[in-house]
Amino acid sequence: MSVALVGAGPGDAGLITVKGLELLRACDAVVYDRLVAAELVAEAPEDALRICRDGLAQDTVDRLLVELGRELDVVRLKGGDPFVFGRGGEEVLVLVEAGIAVEVVPGVSSIAAVPAAAGIPVTHRGVADRVTIATAHAADDSEPDYESLARTGGTLVLFMGLGRLEELARGLIAAGLPASTPAAVVSRGTLRDQATIAAPLHDLPERAAGLPGPALVVVGDVVGLRGRIVPDAALVA
Amino acid sequence: MSVALVGAGPGDAGLITVKGLELLRACDAVVYDRLVAAELVAEAPEDALRICRDGLAQDTVDRLLVELGRELDVVRLKGGDPFVFGRGGEEVLVLVEAGIAVEVVPGVSSIAAVPAAAGIPVTHRGVADRVTIATAHAADDSEPDYESLARTGGTLVLFMGLGRLEELARGLIAAGLPASTPAAVVSRGTLRDQATIAAPLHDLPERAAGLPGPALVVVGDVVGLRGRIVPDAALVA
Repeated sequence: MSVALVGAGPGDAGLITVKGLELLRACDAVVYDRLVAAELVAEAPEDALRICRDGLAQDTVDRLLVELGRELDVVRLKGGDPFVFGRGGEEVLVLVEAGIAVEVVPGVSSIAAVPAAAGIPVTHRGVADRVTIATAHAADDSEPDYESLARTGGTLVLFMGLGRLEELARGLIAAGLPASTPAAVVSRGTLRDQATIAAPLHDLPERAAGLPGPALVVVGDVVGLRGRIVPDAALVA
Repeated sequence: MSVALVGAGPGDAGLITVKGLELLRACDAVVYDRLVAAELVAEAPEDALRICRDGLAQDTVDRLLVELGRELDVVRLKGGDPFVFGRGGEEVLVLVEAGIAVEVVPGVSSIAAVPAAAGIPVTHRGVADRVTIATAHAADDSEPDYESLARTGGTLVLFMGLGRLEELARGLIAAGLPASTPAAVVSRGTLRDQATIAAPLHDLPERAAGLPGPALVVVGDVVGLRGRIVPDAALVA
C-alpha cells in the first residue's frame, strides 16, 4: 500500500525510466495524466484499475490518491518530471499528511528533452551557461515578471499555451531582450508529429501560429546552434 | 555505425531510460563518464569495448567518438542529461561535421531529480513558479553574475564544487538575496550515501563543509517544504 509518483517523460514511451516502468508493471492502480503515452498506460497489469485524471479537479485527484493508496499499490503517472511544474509536491504533501507511504521516481523533464529533440542544447559552452525555466503565466494567472526573465542572462525555456506567445514576445522585448534574439517553438516534442519553428523573437508569434500543443518555447542564442546540429528527423529522442 | 549520446540519469542505475538501456545492451562500444553507475556500464554486451573518459581531454573524447563511430555502434553514456551542462552539444557538432550518424537520448537530469530525492520540489504552486539552473563559475572560470542570479525570482539550482560554496553565498547575499533565504546542499543525490544539509544561505557554507561530491546547491523558498514532505530515506528516487 503506497503511492509512487512516477515521471513518464516528455512523450515518447521509451523515455520512461527503468525503475518507473518496473513499478508500473507491478501496480494495482494507475492514475495518469492525459498526455501520457497510451503504450505506457497499457504496461500496467491487465487487471489494474486505470484512471485518467483529465477533467478531475486537483483536490479530487489528491483525495483519490489517498483513498486508493490506503489499500493498493498505486502509480501516479505524470507527464515529464513530477516536481517540474507537475504539482507533484502538492500530491506528496497530501499523501504524507494522510500517512500514506510515498515514493517519487523522477522522470525525463521536457525542459531539456524537448529542445534536444529539436536539435537545441539548452546549455552550450561559450553560448549559454545558465537556463531559466518558467511558465508564461504566474500561479494567479497574472502576467509573468518579464523584467527579471529578460535579465537572467541565459536560455529561457517556457512552458505555455501558444495562445500567449504574442504577449510573451512583446513582454520580453519591452523588458529589454533584443527583438532579434533567436527563439523557437517546439510543438509535440519527442512525439512522431513533432514540429519546430525557429525565428527571431519578434517574428515567432506569427511564424508559429497554428502549431498544435503541447508546446515549449525556447529563447536564447542556443537556438542558433540548431541548424548546425541536426534536423528534427535525425535526432530521434 | 552510429553514436548515441545517452543520458544515464543522476546516479541511481534504475533512472536510465528504457530506450537508453536498450541501446546500451546492443552497442559495440561504450564511452562513459566517471560518475556513471558501474551497474550500467556492465549492461553493455560482454565483448563490448568499454572506455572511461576520465582523464581524457574533451577533444580526445571527440576524436575517439568519431573514430569509433565510423565502424561501430557506440553509446556515449553521460551523467544526467547530455544537453544540461553535459557538453553534449559539442560532441554532437563534432560528429555531425564528421558525417557520423548521431542520436540523442535524453536522461533524467540531476537538476530536478536530486532535489526531489532530498524532498525538495524545484517548483511548487504558490512558492516558486520559476527555476534557474547555473554553474557556480562561468566558462572562462570567472565569477558568475550574482546580480542577475539574485534577481531571477525563483528557485536557484547550482551545479558546483563545494569548495566555492562560501564565495557563492557571499556573492548572492551581496547581490541582494536575504541571508535567511532557505538553502540546501544535496551530496551524492539518488545514491545510497546521499546526504542533505539545509540551512539559511548565510549559514550553509559552514554547515555543509566536508560533504563529499558530487553536490548540488538549491536556494529558495522551496527548500522550506522539505521538512513537510519526507525525509531523504523515505524518498527512494
